[in-house]
Amino acid sequence: MTVELISVGTEILMGNILNSNARYLAEKCAMLGFNMYFQVTVGDNFGRLQSVIRTALDRSDLVILTGGLGPTEDDLTKEACAAVMGVPLVEDAHTKALIEAYFRNNIYREIPQNNWKMTTVPEGALVLDNHNGMAPGLIVEKNGKTAILLPGPPGELYPLFEEQVMPYLQKLRSCVLLSKTMKICGHGESQVESRLLDLIDAQTNPTIATYAKVGEVHVRLTASAADNESAEALLEPVAEEIRRRFGTSIYTEEEGVTLEAALVKLLTEKKLTISTAESCTGGMVSARLVNVPGASQVFMQGMATYSNEAKMRLLGVRQETLKEYGAVSAQTAREMAAGGAKAARTDVCVSITGLAGPGGGSPQKPVGLVFMACCLKGQVKAERWQFKGNREKIREQSVMKALDLVRRCVLEFSDGAAQQAAGEEAGL
Amino acid sequence: MTVELISVGTEILMGNILNSNARYLAEKCAMLGFNMYFQVTVGDNFGRLQSVIRTALDRSDLVILTGGLGPTEDDLTKEACAAVMGVPLVEDAHTKALIEAYFRNNIYREIPQNNWKMTTVPEGALVLDNHNGMAPGLIVEKNGKTAILLPGPPGELYPLFEEQVMPYLQKLRSCVLLSKTMKICGHGESQVESRLLDLIDAQTNPTIATYAKVGEVHVRLTASAADNESAEALLEPVAEEIRRRFGTSIYTEEEGVTLEAALVKLLTEKKLTISTAESCTGGMVSARLVNVPGASQVFMQGMATYSNEAKMRLLGVRQETLKEYGAVSAQTAREMAAGGAKAARTDVCVSITGLAGPGGGSPQKPVGLVFMACCLKGQVKAERWQFKGNREKIREQSVMKALDLVRRCVLEFSDGAAQQAAGEEAGL
Repeated sequence: MTVELISVGTEILMGNILNSNARYLAEKCAMLGFNMYFQVTVGDNFGRLQSVIRTALDRSDLVILTGGLGPTEDDLTKEACAAVMGVPLVEDAHTKALIEAYFRNNIYREIPQNNWKMTTVPEGALVLDNHNGMAPGLIVEKNGKTAILLPGPPGELYPLFEEQVMPYLQKLRSCVLLSKTMKICGHGESQVESRLLDLIDAQTNPTIATYAKVGEVHVRLTASAADNESAEALLEPVAEEIRRRFGTSIYTEEEGVTLEAALVKLLTEKKLTISTAESCTGGMVSARLVNVPGASQVFMQGMATYSNEAKMRLLGVRQETLKEYGAVSAQTAREMAAGGAKAARTDVCVSITGLAGPGGGSPQKPVGLVFMACCLKGQVKAERWQFKGNREKIREQSVMKALDLVRRCVLEFSDGAAQQAAGEEAGL
Repeated sequence: MTVELISVGTEILMGNILNSNARYLAEKCAMLGFNMYFQVTVGDNFGRLQSVIRTALDRSDLVILTGGLGPTEDDLTKEACAAVMGVPLVEDAHTKALIEAYFRNNIYREIPQNNWKMTTVPEGALVLDNHNGMAPGLIVEKNGKTAILLPGPPGELYPLFEEQVMPYLQKLRSCVLLSKTMKICGHGESQVESRLLDLIDAQTNPTIATYAKVGEVHVRLTASAADNESAEALLEPVAEEIRRRFGTSIYTEEEGVTLEAALVKLLTEKKLTISTAESCTGGMVSARLVNVPGASQVFMQGMATYSNEAKMRLLGVRQETLKEYGAVSAQTAREMAAGGAKAARTDVCVSITGLAGPGGGSPQKPVGLVFMACCLKGQVKAERWQFKGNREKIREQSVMKALDLVRRCVLEFSDGAAQQAAGEEAGL
């Protein structure tokens, strides 16, 4: 089974945007065990679109197209694909109703005329409802070839793919492919790779691949077998060996669970509340925590104290500390965390203060220097990091390390509590 | 002059890496005024490589290939390109000398046999010395078509392109291409397009394209002319007409300026300080503001008050308000903004409270319902929005609308102040 990607969009050809959809889809197709030999990007031009679709359907079994499904005159993917496949476009009553409902619930009263364009689909197409936008996804099958048309915005594409395209593609496969992703914090990619080198070199089934992400590394095992049970049996011994090597550095093995979600789960289990005190990250940690459904159980309050005044007034950081050590220092990070926990009346408070640049660095305190601290029931642990990259990358790495710092503190704390409890039980 | 990109690499097809080279080269080519109609990614396979190179040389004047120039057996780009163009590979004495020198200065004493592969070049090719690696860049011209072969690692590609390919391409270019992006808030893409339809339909030079982003729309004008001045003269009347139609909804015309950067600039100009009081967005607005270099001039403090308790304690929201209207209400949003400005002692405070889902909705207050308010020197303006999409999308839209709300309030406020000043001057 060969699959080919066609990305439609002049903004990609002009270099305005990075084609992250192609990577996303390529990764998913590789996970599914499909062979991908070609990826093509083409602009919003009817003739050129038709030509690349024709070539793709000639040389590949399955063609996934993204972009060009919207309401504007530029959007021609559906039209070109229907023309090449020789399928007429017909109005889809269900999609029409959804679009009408969308506008009824929206502030825009009138439906712009061009939106009706989105209600037509290639005759006989499988229509995939788009819960995050208006243009539906479409699957068109003809003469043993399949075209899957998906919206370009990642916020629409990803959920649509996960929820509706993935199950469809899984059915096309003859064997079962089972994947497990183990997400590891606190080690770089080359570190993870060298620790797994013997396993990677010996890999056949399951395969082992590492993916470097910001502040974390994902190790993905993929086993292929006749059924789920056999695939699971192939996967589990290798997973167990990786667990033995990385221990609690693996923060989750569940698909779709982020570091912040793992942390919220852990805090909920341990019945600990949390607050944040952020300087250079300005609320990124609190925003991440709040993005976890159910975070309200543990997250109480976020304080973005960018100015020294706010650090003093809101968190009780002492003026002398700021004067003597500076805002970017372990001492300030400690006082921010301790003061934040007190101000927000939470069990835990995590603080970040650093130099995200581009300006403001010095030989003693270069750009990328970040201090963070975690205060847990009065105990404060501080860490110093030196990150590389631009402002955004420094901030993103800071967030990941801070979330992991809290995770480690909570794990240590509960280990300590468990030992103490065991000791008390034993009468020590 | 049309140019086509071919990225060679199985790691792109497997989704292991993001194809940032393609974006880089596309942007450079657009800047140079070349038309790019196709980008293709292909793996390290001789037959498939030949086929995409043949197609590219048929339909485009200039083909830029990246990757597959290294010493391993997998590296086939040069071989495939020479075969398609019918040019023999010959040893290049200069490249051979450079590679020998490289190994002399390197820790590896012996030159691995496969490295000699890199010393051959297509006969008659222009050889571009690679100062950051071993495989040289190559320019091959034949029958009015040009192939440019470049190494894949960005650390080799970028300097090689800037220093040697750019000057070569500049000589080929016959005209100048000038672009302007106008960023618009408060209108959907189809709304913007319908308002510009007559201009879009009549477009030839400059061309007009709209790009939908989260909570904003970008309109890009591109003019092509003999020189910069003539291009500017073509661009300006159309830009002026768009300004007339959208007025202050255009928040910037500068490349690379985000809505938050435009807001920070506006606040700095008006000498207004700002704080944030966020519930469902949990610090996303403050994180955005802090990401603008120089934000410390205006941004004082961010408060992420997710719990009702924090809303009361930190922002002074009244218990009766929360009881009577609920946390997600215009009344609560108003009290959050007013209380936040007071607590942080800032001129402006913007608040957001809403239901980002996935759970928690009701017929009266469905998921996606978001209230926001802006308090500016004691005057509070509140807005109600109903957003669509998943939790993340609802939050992202909320952030954009909140930033725009502040922007509009500040503009109205300064208009009012200007009118008042003018009135006072006129003795009214």
